[in-house]
Amino acid sequence: MTSPSLPRHLLKTSWAHADGELLIGGQPVSAIAAALNADAFYVYDAALMRQRMAELRAALPAGVHIRYALKANPYPPVAALMAGLADGMDVASANELRIALDAGVAAQDISFAGPGKRDAELAQAIVAGCLINLESLNEAARVAALGKSLDRKPRVALRLNPDFELRGAGMRMSGGAKPFGVDAEDAPEALCEIAALGLDCEGLHIFSGSQSLKADAIAASLEQAYALAERLLPHLAAPLRQLNLGGGFGIPYFPGEPPLDLAPISAALKGIVTRAGQTMPQADLHLELGRYLVGEAGCYVTRIVDRKLSRGQVFLITAGGMNHHLAASGNLGQVLRKNYPVAIGNRFTAATEENATVCGPLCSPLDVLAENYALPRAEVGDLVVVFQSGAYGASASPQGFLSHAPLVETLVG
Amino acid sequence: MTSPSLPRHLLKTSWAHADGELLIGGQPVSAIAAALNADAFYVYDAALMRQRMAELRAALPAGVHIRYALKANPYPPVAALMAGLADGMDVASANELRIALDAGVAAQDISFAGPGKRDAELAQAIVAGCLINLESLNEAARVAALGKSLDRKPRVALRLNPDFELRGAGMRMSGGAKPFGVDAEDAPEALCEIAALGLDCEGLHIFSGSQSLKADAIAASLEQAYALAERLLPHLAAPLRQLNLGGGFGIPYFPGEPPLDLAPISAALKGIVTRAGQTMPQADLHLELGRYLVGEAGCYVTRIVDRKLSRGQVFLITAGGMNHHLAASGNLGQVLRKNYPVAIGNRFTAATEENATVCGPLCSPLDVLAENYALPRAEVGDLVVVFQSGAYGASASPQGFLSHAPLVETLVG
Repeated sequence: MTSPSLPRHLLKTSWAHADGELLIGGQPVSAIAAALNADAFYVYDAALMRQRMAELRAALPAGVHIRYALKANPYPPVAALMAGLADGMDVASANELRIALDAGVAAQDISFAGPGKRDAELAQAIVAGCLINLESLNEAARVAALGKSLDRKPRVALRLNPDFELRGAGMRMSGGAKPFGVDAEDAPEALCEIAALGLDCEGLHIFSGSQSLKADAIAASLEQAYALAERLLPHLAAPLRQLNLGGGFGIPYFPGEPPLDLAPISAALKGIVTRAGQTMPQADLHLELGRYLVGEAGCYVTRIVDRKLSRGQVFLITAGGMNHHLAASGNLGQVLRKNYPVAIGNRFTAATEENATVCGPLCSPLDVLAENYALPRAEVGDLVVVFQSGAYGASASPQGFLSHAPLVETLVG
Repeated sequence: MTSPSLPRHLLKTSWAHADGELLIGGQPVSAIAAALNADAFYVYDAALMRQRMAELRAALPAGVHIRYALKANPYPPVAALMAGLADGMDVASANELRIALDAGVAAQDISFAGPGKRDAELAQAIVAGCLINLESLNEAARVAALGKSLDRKPRVALRLNPDFELRGAGMRMSGGAKPFGVDAEDAPEALCEIAALGLDCEGLHIFSGSQSLKADAIAASLEQAYALAERLLPHLAAPLRQLNLGGGFGIPYFPGEPPLDLAPISAALKGIVTRAGQTMPQADLHLELGRYLVGEAGCYVTRIVDRKLSRGQVFLITAGGMNHHLAASGNLGQVLRKNYPVAIGNRFTAATEENATVCGPLCSPLDVLAENYALPRAEVGDLVVVFQSGAYGASASPQGFLSHAPLVETLVG
């Protein structure tokens, strides 16, 4: 299924093609563009999401549940699909909570994390009955007060800022001074205070980082998270019922990046499940994964509006750009811009002929989707495909920039 | 009017205060928050925009007109204000064209630039009668064809990619291989081809960069732009009627940055106006300015939802963050993150007491509005103000990130 023009660093997913054209969910990309009547869109492949989840379940021990972190892709049809595939969802705002409930997830299986939850959001979560991952004692006090005024018993867990970090993570979220959760060393006292507020702390949430491709580092961080939870058991007023061990499973974006090896992670989780059966038999152990579940199943597609030569360099100008795909433009946390894997969808099997720079429609030098990238010769009307775009794409992009038309999204397959 | 807590690098604008509180448009910031019933909003001060334009007009020679680049801030009330203050607008999309027309700008005074204009956008511009800055010969051919099919005579100018660059610009947009316009050295031939397409090229557009604080560099780039236009006069089929000399006027964001000195720019423009009176007497000379006109007149304001200490570091968690203000989070083109000027609006004159890190509500380590910043001691409910936020703020931010509630904007004063 590989082809001369397949981006060489797109290792994990082998995309199908027919008549030289990329197929997404079995449909030629040009047919999807025509059906949507759109010259810039995200398309997500449901079959690839199902396949990813099946592979993951096969690799991991049965005692570990998988929650979907909705922030990765909150497009409602994707949420509905993930509601059927995952064992619950983690949400990060009241609107995400609403999307999860609309998708059919039981409130019992939803947890709500985020360092800046507002009173109205907390109230919504309390009334819905989802688990609130407390980020501070201030938040605990607000939740307790809201519970009283609403005459409901809030469901809470404590989020911890661990004293270790996830090595090799694209985003480090622990191991130093952080805005997330309560510092691990302060947790015993915090758990006392939470109990004193009349709250039943049923869980712990330990998230040390995201987008790591180092399996050994992830395995170690899961073991450290478990050990931290175990150390805190004597400080809990009631048995632990929820343990969110975090996630951090990365996907390959850039040349030379390998896909994640699940074997060491699975081995670590097997040990954790066995020990947890002894030490915290009532605890639901789960991982919180977003990007890993949906990131490789989505493409951003945009039509070439102009092709030009400037001082010897080929530029392909597309209908959408950084306004639709901030991460691919290199402006979402990257220090140095690197190219996402890119192809010309309707010339998918054509040989590469030239190096081209793909720019979006904005009057800004930041609006670059691919720089100096080996591609077949592409013409106006062709479709540029940016792979690995199923997570942190549409919702993480400044769609109002230069007031261009809103994005289109679709789920196929 | 300065105070102990006034950010030291906020040099140009001196903000008023009363009873210890920041005034915006004469109103206490807490009163604006209460009136909007919002815990995260942009507020733009109309008086500061008027003042900036008046100062600019006083400094520049009368023969130079000032166009507003709507992309800097397309909020309709700001657009309506700028419609009355500026001599026209430059738009970058069909929706921006609509906003400009709605704001009361005559189509005659609107120009439309952008490397990826779609046929539907070009048709809208042709029908409206605004000037289309052609970015390539491909675009010229499409405009000519659309003009025929619509039975209208398109108004066009040629955008040039100059053979010089704007030194010290935050965004370099010329001087090498670029996606913008036609390379200067190819312009004579391009002008021939445009004439051969039956299009009357009435103007030239030369934009070499943005956000420069080096007045001498801007003066030099304006002189080079003018000289380039003069060299091309013999290649134009009809007298030049529009000359967009560009802009690039920066505003200070970071410690140590001085406000722009208009004197060298004014001197250069005086020379240009005098020469143009001889060589291109019919040409309307204009600058295209966005950020410089509105950037210092706007603040982003967001309420503190939590205050916490993690491993000795103070964190203030706010209701909005990078989802509302991507640039202040350091994720809009910056290689290394630097702090925008920040204050606690309702403790504006209080002495600084501690270094705090201001984080937004997203579950992401990227969501930082100010890092290790000297502030008065701030509490939950206080209002963090990010200055220099009138341009490339709301519209350039990923408002859908984590599905938080939409932003509020207001124009006061």
